[in-house]
Amino acid sequence: MPTDLKTYMQQMAALVEEELDRLLPTESEAPGIIHRAMRYSTCGGGKRLRAMLAMEAAGLRGESRLRALPVAASLEMIHAYSLIHDDLPCMDDDDYRRGQPSNHKLFGEGLAVLAGDGLLAEAFVVLSRLPELIGLSPELTVRVIACVAEAASTKGLVGGQVADLQAEGAPVDDHAAETLRFIHERKTGALFKASLLAGAMVGGLDSEDLAAVSRYAMHFGLAFQIMDDLLDVIGDEERLGKAVGSDQRRQKLTYPRLYGVERSKTMALEAVEAAKESVKRFGAAADRLAQLAAFVVEREY
Amino acid sequence: MPTDLKTYMQQMAALVEEELDRLLPTESEAPGIIHRAMRYSTCGGGKRLRAMLAMEAAGLRGESRLRALPVAASLEMIHAYSLIHDDLPCMDDDDYRRGQPSNHKLFGEGLAVLAGDGLLAEAFVVLSRLPELIGLSPELTVRVIACVAEAASTKGLVGGQVADLQAEGAPVDDHAAETLRFIHERKTGALFKASLLAGAMVGGLDSEDLAAVSRYAMHFGLAFQIMDDLLDVIGDEERLGKAVGSDQRRQKLTYPRLYGVERSKTMALEAVEAAKESVKRFGAAADRLAQLAAFVVEREY
Repeated sequence: MPTDLKTYMQQMAALVEEELDRLLPTESEAPGIIHRAMRYSTCGGGKRLRAMLAMEAAGLRGESRLRALPVAASLEMIHAYSLIHDDLPCMDDDDYRRGQPSNHKLFGEGLAVLAGDGLLAEAFVVLSRLPELIGLSPELTVRVIACVAEAASTKGLVGGQVADLQAEGAPVDDHAAETLRFIHERKTGALFKASLLAGAMVGGLDSEDLAAVSRYAMHFGLAFQIMDDLLDVIGDEERLGKAVGSDQRRQKLTYPRLYGVERSKTMALEAVEAAKESVKRFGAAADRLAQLAAFVVEREY
Repeated sequence: MPTDLKTYMQQMAALVEEELDRLLPTESEAPGIIHRAMRYSTCGGGKRLRAMLAMEAAGLRGESRLRALPVAASLEMIHAYSLIHDDLPCMDDDDYRRGQPSNHKLFGEGLAVLAGDGLLAEAFVVLSRLPELIGLSPELTVRVIACVAEAASTKGLVGGQVADLQAEGAPVDDHAAETLRFIHERKTGALFKASLLAGAMVGGLDSEDLAAVSRYAMHFGLAFQIMDDLLDVIGDEERLGKAVGSDQRRQKLTYPRLYGVERSKTMALEAVEAAKESVKRFGAAADRLAQLAAFVVEREY
């Protein structure tokens, strides 16, 4: 395993890319256009944080990280689906994503909705094949599916996006901190948590280990989200591949808006420390998880 | 069991309604608005054909039909999701569904997209709970999920809708019959087939029985689709709860357009007979499936 984090992340991302290419239907399968639209937003880029978290969690008790590759790929499909739908004109109305035209700008709104739908369904196609793909027991396969489905439901991604849309333009009142937490535990936190837990299940972790991974997930998600909000204030458009300042224009409820930039930075750093602490029990096997937590607050994109 | 088909269908629909009410998140769970939107399009109406097919298939070898209720409900969630997304302005742009405003007319496009997404995810939440809900083995649970996920994927619903959008306004050429078949095997056929097979798996059917059910599904789906196309030409707007003639206005590829009204009627009746023939092996246990096949071509709504 490479010692340098950047090299490691690049190598892992390349493996995830290959797995997505292997698992997603190809353009030669009819109707080709929908598979092109699905691949456009899923392949070829992204940090692959969810995939990496799943793979690292799978390796915490000695299992090969690579065994979690199909799970990692299915999580990236769900992440891509949520970005496609979030970018739609009827939602966040974003024209760019990772420096490229967003899905509906290239394929039109109808196909973009369907590409998202197709990716969500395909993720469950892949997960239901885990017994055949990696020899996972049917019991664990059902648990992995339950965990991922809940993260995609109104208890997760969908609920977070709804609350986010509703909070736009709302005044910062006494409930704002609570609302902000509600949004991010679902909109970003839930899929990070599902990634870590699904990976950990593939890795055969017991319930105490899973509880520790779950705590790590909570702190990791918080650190990530605070930094995401901060980058919209202090980030570099070119490195981010999207416009900054959009949260402010939309009067979104964010950490810097609620707590200010400096306090937000401190909160993010505290969350990183808490995340590292949560996985101490795994010793050196958790080194990458500790590094990834530090990475999310140091990143510039 | 009631002997009259209409009474039977009403009683089964009432059971499905109760099950959906039991399984769907309530409006009291935050964010309440998304659960209201999901329930608006899933509860309170519809023929519940997919649910009934699942339950009847479950009963073919002596298992209680009621055991398939959670599977039946999850299929109705997926059906409702596909209707919400199909009705969007960027797709078929339909303002009415079952005589009521379509989801986006009432909740706005953003929430309608999310209500569909939420229903698709919730269906897999329910399916992953089958071991706990009805004591289904993890092996069969995974098979049921695989079957439903494929039907929702680009091999099913999504692929059918894409092909349908692409065929709008296209000239009727030598490939039209093939294209029409491609669309309907996916857009309507795939979910009927998944309903029947998922139900049959709950009912413990063996592979030869499943093959027979699969043949019934193919013929049933064809009969249903031809009739659906015919009702758009010869149906009554009030009974249908939606405008007729919309296929023609959009120059959709349909059975009456390709084969004429009379030939289409004959094809539908032939498909009903083939459907009945396919499930003869089950004797009296398949009586309702035979009646349901006859119903789809006799219905006026």
